[in-house]
Amino acid sequence: MKLTMLESAGELKVVGVELSESQTQFIDLCAVDDSLPNCLFGILREGVLDRATRAFQGGLAQKKFIEGKIKAPITKPEKIICIGLNYGDHARETKAEIPSEPVCFGKYANTIIGPGDSIRLPAVSQRVDYEAELVVVIGKSAYQVDAADALDYVAGYMIGNDVSARDWQKGRPGGQWMLGKSPDTFAPIGPYVVTCEEVGDPHQLSISLTLNGETMQQSSTTELIFGIDKIIAHLTQIMTLQPGDLIFTGTPSGVGDARKPPVYLKDGDTVEVTIEKLGSLQNTVVS
Amino acid sequence: MKLTMLESAGELKVVGVELSESQTQFIDLCAVDDSLPNCLFGILREGVLDRATRAFQGGLAQKKFIEGKIKAPITKPEKIICIGLNYGDHARETKAEIPSEPVCFGKYANTIIGPGDSIRLPAVSQRVDYEAELVVVIGKSAYQVDAADALDYVAGYMIGNDVSARDWQKGRPGGQWMLGKSPDTFAPIGPYVVTCEEVGDPHQLSISLTLNGETMQQSSTTELIFGIDKIIAHLTQIMTLQPGDLIFTGTPSGVGDARKPPVYLKDGDTVEVTIEKLGSLQNTVVS
Repeated sequence: MKLTMLESAGELKVVGVELSESQTQFIDLCAVDDSLPNCLFGILREGVLDRATRAFQGGLAQKKFIEGKIKAPITKPEKIICIGLNYGDHARETKAEIPSEPVCFGKYANTIIGPGDSIRLPAVSQRVDYEAELVVVIGKSAYQVDAADALDYVAGYMIGNDVSARDWQKGRPGGQWMLGKSPDTFAPIGPYVVTCEEVGDPHQLSISLTLNGETMQQSSTTELIFGIDKIIAHLTQIMTLQPGDLIFTGTPSGVGDARKPPVYLKDGDTVEVTIEKLGSLQNTVVS
Repeated sequence: MKLTMLESAGELKVVGVELSESQTQFIDLCAVDDSLPNCLFGILREGVLDRATRAFQGGLAQKKFIEGKIKAPITKPEKIICIGLNYGDHARETKAEIPSEPVCFGKYANTIIGPGDSIRLPAVSQRVDYEAELVVVIGKSAYQVDAADALDYVAGYMIGNDVSARDWQKGRPGGQWMLGKSPDTFAPIGPYVVTCEEVGDPHQLSISLTLNGETMQQSSTTELIFGIDKIIAHLTQIMTLQPGDLIFTGTPSGVGDARKPPVYLKDGDTVEVTIEKLGSLQNTVVS
């Protein structure tokens, strides 16, 4: 099942998504089951994904489709955790060592935007870069979880773009990446969360990014250094993950900052991330 | 005015705090004005601190006191931003250079606990340390704010303890401090937010920390390398601060990890931070 938030008739609704050859159709889950929370975050927090599934199936049977514009599936997670240097080819292109454990840093919810929304270039950065990433959406509270059980705590997966101001990420006192990762609009996510049973193995997905139609990143999640199970086990040694928390799992090679000459996002650019089974996420860039 | 959250008769209430020589008394703000949001975060988000003030004064006049247990004043901020190495003496004791601009990193809301709550030592850390800090509470949405205007965006101040797992903060691949700063319970805050007019100059406050009654940190916010105005101006070049956002402004010298021999928190410890005009924040430590 694919779930997202839809702006429809001036309201935000949580919807199931039905893709056909010619169109994308949406089922308003609360119109089928009005006891469901009216947002995806609420469905995850209340642990009622099974009821959402039944509502979706019921709506499909009744062909209760609505129209609208897809928004960011989740806007107020408690945590957005990012893993750095998690594809071997990306670690090498940035001249970093292959890490011996996941490199973890954070973004805040001010960074979240949805499909079609604009990435806004801060006036104070001249080196804004893209990063295609598979995003894990946590579905159950998780603490001290073994890698063997870790995927049971995942609700689903979606596409993310870990937009990064390289001149604020690196070369600054203290060496902390947070500011370079946290400008407003620097975490496009979407278009929908695809639940685990529909994704199958998350470590077998092709991932690519185009900038103005030109392929800049092309890889597969088979290349992840630390798989999603190991990332969750690592994080939950020290913190409780909560439903709705997002984990950006790292980006493959081909980032703009490592190119010769380097490529940075500029006003008018269109950047699109595609991940197998998860769709495509397109955003424009404005200065 | 002092504002906080109180657990009273099984309910969480937003209250104004009246200190007298012999006791601490609380005014249930919603009992005076039932149109107020029922939490401090809501009051800040809706920008109704002025109405909260009138409710407090009205309640005081009527002596409508209630009793209860103080909880963390704010539990779900969008951002908890921390400034590192922001007291010269602390930068020196950690053998770090005095930074040329604020060193910024993050914690998540899973870290927040209130007065009297227990700091829980993760089994995977052997080097958990304390850090007495002045915490800024943002009161208005702030983007691209000049230092000269920055304090206008502050709702008030409170005490924080930036508890840190040094063995997860430092010496790990990638050099990011986030995991060492983000274990559950690692951000005690409170006991109340003291509004700006009652604090006066936030750069003239004594700050100290005791561990089991022994003074470990003793300094003044006069020693801040980057004042609150400059921190807000720096952050808002790149991100929008929102009402309820918390900024931990850094810790003075005397942290346990820099002592010879080092001192780390252990089961049964009591740690107390005191800041002039802001009260005291005491927490116990459990393994």
